[in-house]
Amino acid sequence: MTDSTVVLTAHPGDFVWRAGGAIALAASRGQRVVIGCMSFGERGESASLWRKGYTLQQVKDHRRAEAEQAAKALGAEIRFFDADDYPLVETPQLLQGLIDLYREVQPGVVLTHAAADPYNGDHAFAHAIALKARVLAQAPGVEGPGEVIGAPPVFSFEPHQPEQCGFVPNVLLDITPVWEVKRAAMQILAAQKHLHTYYTELGSRRGLQASRNSGPNLGLPNDTYAEAYMRLYPQVTRELS
Amino acid sequence: MTDSTVVLTAHPGDFVWRAGGAIALAASRGQRVVIGCMSFGERGESASLWRKGYTLQQVKDHRRAEAEQAAKALGAEIRFFDADDYPLVETPQLLQGLIDLYREVQPGVVLTHAAADPYNGDHAFAHAIALKARVLAQAPGVEGPGEVIGAPPVFSFEPHQPEQCGFVPNVLLDITPVWEVKRAAMQILAAQKHLHTYYTELGSRRGLQASRNSGPNLGLPNDTYAEAYMRLYPQVTRELS
Amino acid sequence: MTDSTVVLTAHPGDFVWRAGGAIALAASRGQRVVIGCMSFGERGESASLWRKGYTLQQVKDHRRAEAEQAAKALGAEIRFFDADDYPLVETPQLLQGLIDLYREVQPGVVLTHAAADPYNGDHAFAHAIALKARVLAQAPGVEGPGEVIGAPPVFSFEPHQPEQCGFVPNVLLDITPVWEVKRAAMQILAAQKHLHTYYTELGSRRGLQASRNSGPNLGLPNDTYAEAYMRLYPQVTRELS
Amino acid sequence: MTDSTVVLTAHPGDFVWRAGGAIALAASRGQRVVIGCMSFGERGESASLWRKGYTLQQVKDHRRAEAEQAAKALGAEIRFFDADDYPLVETPQLLQGLIDLYREVQPGVVLTHAAADPYNGDHAFAHAIALKARVLAQAPGVEGPGEVIGAPPVFSFEPHQPEQCGFVPNVLLDITPVWEVKRAAMQILAAQKHLHTYYTELGSRRGLQASRNSGPNLGLPNDTYAEAYMRLYPQVTRELS
Amino acid sequence: MTDSTVVLTAHPGDFVWRAGGAIALAASRGQRVVIGCMSFGERGESASLWRKGYTLQQVKDHRRAEAEQAAKALGAEIRFFDADDYPLVETPQLLQGLIDLYREVQPGVVLTHAAADPYNGDHAFAHAIALKARVLAQAPGVEGPGEVIGAPPVFSFEPHQPEQCGFVPNVLLDITPVWEVKRAAMQILAAQKHLHTYYTELGSRRGLQASRNSGPNLGLPNDTYAEAYMRLYPQVTRELS
Amino acid sequence: MTDSTVVLTAHPGDFVWRAGGAIALAASRGQRVVIGCMSFGERGESASLWRKGYTLQQVKDHRRAEAEQAAKALGAEIRFFDADDYPLVETPQLLQGLIDLYREVQPGVVLTHAAADPYNGDHAFAHAIALKARVLAQAPGVEGPGEVIGAPPVFSFEPHQPEQCGFVPNVLLDITPVWEVKRAAMQILAAQKHLHTYYTELGSRRGLQASRNSGPNLGLPNDTYAEAYMRLYPQVTRELS
Repeated sequence: MTDSTVVLTAHPGDFVWRAGGAIALAASRGQRVVIGCMSFGERGESASLWRKGYTLQQVKDHRRAEAEQAAKALGAEIRFFDADDYPLVETPQLLQGLIDLYREVQPGVVLTHAAADPYNGDHAFAHAIALKARVLAQAPGVEGPGEVIGAPPVFSFEPHQPEQCGFVPNVLLDITPVWEVKRAAMQILAAQKHLHTYYTELGSRRGLQASRNSGPNLGLPNDTYAEAYMRLYPQVTRELS
Repeated sequence: MTDSTVVLTAHPGDFVWRAGGAIALAASRGQRVVIGCMSFGERGESASLWRKGYTLQQVKDHRRAEAEQAAKALGAEIRFFDADDYPLVETPQLLQGLIDLYREVQPGVVLTHAAADPYNGDHAFAHAIALKARVLAQAPGVEGPGEVIGAPPVFSFEPHQPEQCGFVPNVLLDITPVWEVKRAAMQILAAQKHLHTYYTELGSRRGLQASRNSGPNLGLPNDTYAEAYMRLYPQVTRELS
Repeated sequence: MTDSTVVLTAHPGDFVWRAGGAIALAASRGQRVVIGCMSFGERGESASLWRKGYTLQQVKDHRRAEAEQAAKALGAEIRFFDADDYPLVETPQLLQGLIDLYREVQPGVVLTHAAADPYNGDHAFAHAIALKARVLAQAPGVEGPGEVIGAPPVFSFEPHQPEQCGFVPNVLLDITPVWEVKRAAMQILAAQKHLHTYYTELGSRRGLQASRNSGPNLGLPNDTYAEAYMRLYPQVTRELS
Repeated sequence: MTDSTVVLTAHPGDFVWRAGGAIALAASRGQRVVIGCMSFGERGESASLWRKGYTLQQVKDHRRAEAEQAAKALGAEIRFFDADDYPLVETPQLLQGLIDLYREVQPGVVLTHAAADPYNGDHAFAHAIALKARVLAQAPGVEGPGEVIGAPPVFSFEPHQPEQCGFVPNVLLDITPVWEVKRAAMQILAAQKHLHTYYTELGSRRGLQASRNSGPNLGLPNDTYAEAYMRLYPQVTRELS
Repeated sequence: MTDSTVVLTAHPGDFVWRAGGAIALAASRGQRVVIGCMSFGERGESASLWRKGYTLQQVKDHRRAEAEQAAKALGAEIRFFDADDYPLVETPQLLQGLIDLYREVQPGVVLTHAAADPYNGDHAFAHAIALKARVLAQAPGVEGPGEVIGAPPVFSFEPHQPEQCGFVPNVLLDITPVWEVKRAAMQILAAQKHLHTYYTELGSRRGLQASRNSGPNLGLPNDTYAEAYMRLYPQVTRELS
Repeated sequence: MTDSTVVLTAHPGDFVWRAGGAIALAASRGQRVVIGCMSFGERGESASLWRKGYTLQQVKDHRRAEAEQAAKALGAEIRFFDADDYPLVETPQLLQGLIDLYREVQPGVVLTHAAADPYNGDHAFAHAIALKARVLAQAPGVEGPGEVIGAPPVFSFEPHQPEQCGFVPNVLLDITPVWEVKRAAMQILAAQKHLHTYYTELGSRRGLQASRNSGPNLGLPNDTYAEAYMRLYPQVTRELS
C-alpha cells in the first residue's frame, strides 16, 4: 500500500497550522498519515512557556503532549526526533531516523517546509534534510530497515510570510470537507491563540483564490477553505485538468 | 458541458508536434477539442515550399490542407484565423475571433505556447494574445456571442529549445495510450520529416522523466511516452498526488 | 513644491482598495494627491452593473460618480482619461495626457500597478504606460505644457493575487492613523461589498507583518494597519533605517 | 536605546571599503557602532604579508592593528572573533559570540555581506551566520546574556563584482558629509593601495546614481558620494518617499 | 564573407560609449562594421541642444554629423532610420529597414541594447525590434532584397545602471589595443563631456574585472581596458576556454 | 604550461556521460586532463551491483576499475578521493585533496557538476566543494604543496534533468571529432546500458541545437554531436564571436 503520507516539520505547531487540512483530508479517506517532528520547538517557538519559568524538559513535555493531541485530532500518527531547535542542525541520528521513517511508511506523498525562510532558519533546514533523506531512502546501497522507496511527490506548505520566502503557491487544496477538523486541532494549541484567527482567515483567503482559479470542471464556491502548497517536482498525470 | 479543450497556436504544425498527445488523449475520452491556428505559418515555417516556388496562396492552401488532415487524425476540430505570420501581430479581428472561440467552446482546459521564444517571436505573441483573450472572454462587459467563460487552467506546451525559452516543465502527461495516434498525425506533416525522429525521441525522453518522477501510486514504466507542459495558474485540487 | 503624489490606475476601484491608505496619509499631511484613472473599468470590473442592464454610458457615469466620491473621502483630486478598458490600449491621447499630468503636478511620489497581472492585463498595461510617461515627462525635447519633472520614486501597490504577479513587497506603510478614512472610502464602493472584508483583513495582515519587520526604532504594535508596496527604483536616503 | 548599528564582516578590510560611509555617518550622529570581524583575513586577504615572510601570528597582529585604527578613524568599536578564514566555518563559539554581541548592542540596524560571492566563500558564509545569529538572538529560549533583540533591518553592503553576486542595490546612501572620514580610514589600510582609487571611484559612481534616482524632494547634486546597499527585509515606514 | 558586425542602437551616442571598443576592434582586424541608428536621439538625449534653442531639424542634423564623425573615427559605416525617439515605436518602415540591413550586411556578430532599461524605454524597444528583425531576416518567406541570414550571435552592450536593467555581464572583451581609438571617438561627442570620465573609468573597471576572471591561458594584466557584454544565445564553440 | 583541464565529479560515471567529449577533445589536442572522483558512487549509483550481492569493497573495486578504463579510453588521468557517497560530505581531507590537485595540475579549465540537483544531492555538494577548493587554491596564505593557481574558467556539465536543476546551457561544445572516442568510453560502463542510447541521443540533440545557434562563421552541419555546458564566470575574450 503506497497511499500514505509523510509530513516532516521542524517544530510541532507547523503541521497543524500549515498542513492540518491536507492531513485531515487524507485521514478522512482512510489513508495513513505519519508526522515526523524534528524538534519540540522548545527554544524558538515556546516563548510564552519560557516566560512562565518552565524548564527545558517541561517545555518539551508540554509541546509533545499538545502535538500528540493535535495529531490525534487530525487522524495522524506522530513521531518525535528530539533533535534540538534554534538551531536545528544535521546529525547522523536525525538523518538516519528520517531515512528509516520513509522506508517504514513508504509514502505516496510527502509534505514539508518551503526551501527558504529568512525568519526561521530551522524551516529551511528541515526542508533540506527532508529532501536529502528522501533521495537516500531510494538507494539500495544506503543502509536501513525495509525496502527502498519510490519517488513520491513533495509539497511545501505555506510559510508565514510567503513572499519573503520565495513561496509561490502552485497547488491550492480544497479542505472545506475537513475544515471543522482542522479548526478543532488548532484549538488544541492553546499557547498561540492569535494564530487561530490568522489561519482561519488564511484558509478562507486561499479558498477564495482556489475558487477564482478553479476551472469550470471543478467549480468551487466562494466560501471554500483551502491550503496553499508548492509542488517541488513535476506533476505526472494521465489527464490535464 | 465544460470538458472541452481549446488549443491556440501560432502556426499549424505546432499543435501536432507539441500537443498532439494531449489532443488525442482528450479526444479518446470523447471530449471536444478545438484547435485555433492564428496563421498558416506561411512565411516563417514553410521554407521548403517557398524554395519550390509556391505562391503565397499556394503555401497557405498547402499548410491548411495538411493541418486539417492532422487535426482529423487526432480527433479534433480546427479553425484558421489567417492573421499572417512572421510577424504575427495583433488585430481587432484576431482578438475578437479568439474571444468568440472561447465563448463558443467554453473550454475546461486551454493549451498554448510558452511565454517566451527567442527563436520565434510569433510563439510569444500567440501566448500573450491567447491569455489576453481568455481574460476578456470572462467579462460580461466585453461584447461577443454566447456566455462568458469561467477560469479554465492554461498549459504551455514545450518549445523547441526549452531552456532558452524559460520553459521549466511542471506537468508531464502520459500519452502512451495514444502514441500511435500522435505518430500518425506527425506523418501527415510531410515537409518536416526530420521532426518525426526528433519528437519521437522527445516523447520517449519525457516519458522516462515521467517515470522517474511518478510516485508509487502512479508507477509508470520506463517505456512511457509523455509530453511536457508548464501550468500557468495554480492547480486547484481536492487531493494532493 | 514637490511633495505631491500622483496615483495612476487602470480602473476607478484600484486606488481605493490598494492605495487608499497611502493617499489618505499624504492628504492628512496637507499634501496634494492627484489620481489619474485611465478608464472607468466599464467592461472588466462592472459585471454587476451590466447584469442590471445598464448602458455603456450609464456604467461609466456610475463608476465616475463613485470614484469622485471616494477620492473626495480620501482627500484627493481625480482625473479621468476615459481610454476604454478590457483591453486598455495605448493611444497618443492617453500617453500625452499622462505626460501632461506629471508635468502639471510635479509629483514627489508616484503610485501605480505592479508590472504583471495574469488575471487582468489592464493592470500590467497601466504599469507600463505610467512608467513610460514618467520617463518622457523628464525630457526637455518631449513636447507638453509646463516644466520637465525630476525622478520621483515609483511604488507598485498590491495586486489581488500577489504571488502570481511577481509582487514581493519591499515596503510596508503604516496606515493606522488613517484607517478609518480608508474604511469610509471603501464603503462608498457599494457594488463590491465582499471586498470590504477582504481589504480590512489585508490591512490587518500587512499590519502584523509590518510589526514583525519593524526594527526596535519604529516598534509598531500588532494591531497596526498597513499597505504593501514594491519600490521600483533604488531608495536614496541619508540614513539607513 | 536602540539606535546603534552592528556591522558583521568576514575580514577586517570589508567594513572600511564597503560600509565605511555608513559607519562614519551613524557615528557622526552620535550613535554607537560595533563592528564584529569574524576573522583577521589572515589567509585569504593578506597575500602581500605572506609574500614578505610574516608568520601566521604576525599576519593576524598586523591585520588587527590596522583594523582597530580604521575603526577608530570611523568612530566605531571593534571586536574580533578570530574564527579562521579561507575557509571561515561555523563553530559553536562563533555562533554564540555573535548572538551575545547582538544582545549586548541591541542594534537598530545590521550591516553584513551579500548572500552570495563566487569569488570568496567566506563572504557568503558570514552573511549566512550573521542572519542565523540574529534570528537566534530574538528567541527567549536561546541562552545567552542580556535581553532578546527585536527585528532590526539588515542591509548587505556591496561586493566587489556585484553582478556576479546577485547584488542589486535597492538603497543608495548619501555619504557625502563623511566622505573625508571614509577616505582617511581607507588610507590606513596601507597594503591595498590600489583599492583607494577603486573605492573612491565607486563612491563617486554610486553618488551619481543616487543623484539620478533621488526624487525632487531630496534633490542630490551630481558630485554626491554614496554607498550601495541591498535591504533584505521589507522596509517599514510611516511615509512613502 | 560573414565576418562583419551589425550594431543596432536607439540613439547615436550609444554605439560610442557602450560598444566603441568592440567596433574599433573588429575594424582594426579589417572587418566591416555597420551601425544602424534607429533615431537621432533628438528628444530624449539632446537636452543641452534644446536648451540652446535648436529646432528639431537642427538637433537632428547636429546629432547626425556627430555620429558620422564618431563612426568614422571607429572605422565603421553608419545608417540612420530616423524613426523618432522618446518614444521610439515600431513602424513597418523601421522593421523592414532592419531586415534589409541584416540581409545586406550578412553579419557574423550583432550588437544591441539590453532587454530592459527602466530609465529609457527606447533602449528596451531597440533591443526587441533588433531581435525580431534578425529572426525575420532568417526566413525565406519574408520579403526583402538579398539572401536570408544565418544565426549570428547577439550581444547586449552595457546599460548605464546595469543592476537595474537585469544586465549580468557574461562576456568581458579586452579592448586595450584600441583604447585610444575609442577615446578619440568619445571626444567627438562634445555635448556630453562628463561621460568621457565616466566611460574611461568604466573601461578601466571592466578591464580589472576581465583581468581577475581571465584564466591562466589569457593572463590579462591589471591595466586592461574592457567592455562588458551579455551574450543572448548559447555560445557554440570547438574548445572550452 | 596551463592548458590542462581538471574535471571534478561526485561519482565515476559522471565524467564519461556528461563530459566525455570535452575530455577527449582536450586530450586529442595533446593537453593533460586530470579527473578527480570524490567517491566511487558505491551507494547511490551502483544499485545493480548491490542487487548482485557485492560487498561494499567489491562495489568500490568494480567502479574504480571501470572508471580507470574509461578515463584511459578518453585519454585522461584519474584520481580517487574515496570520500563516501549518498551522502557525500565535506571532510578536511577531501577539501585539502582538491586544493592539492588544483595546485599540482594548474588547470586552464575546470569542469564540474551544476549548482543544484534535486534528484541527487551529491552532485550539488560536489559543485560547491569544487568551487570552494578552487578559491582556496588561489590564496598564498592557504597551505599546500606547489604554487597558487590563477582563475581558470569553470563549466558545469549537463545534469540528467536539466530544467529541474536550473541548468540553462550557455555553451555548446562541438565534440563531433571525438564522438567515437566518447562512444567507446561509454561502452565500458557496462552496468548502465540504457544510458548509451540516452547519451547518444543527447549528443545528437545538443549537436542540432549547436548547429542552429552557430553563426555563419562556424556553420556547423545538422549531424553535429555536442555537449552542453554552463559557464559560471564571465568569459574573457579578445574577440566577440
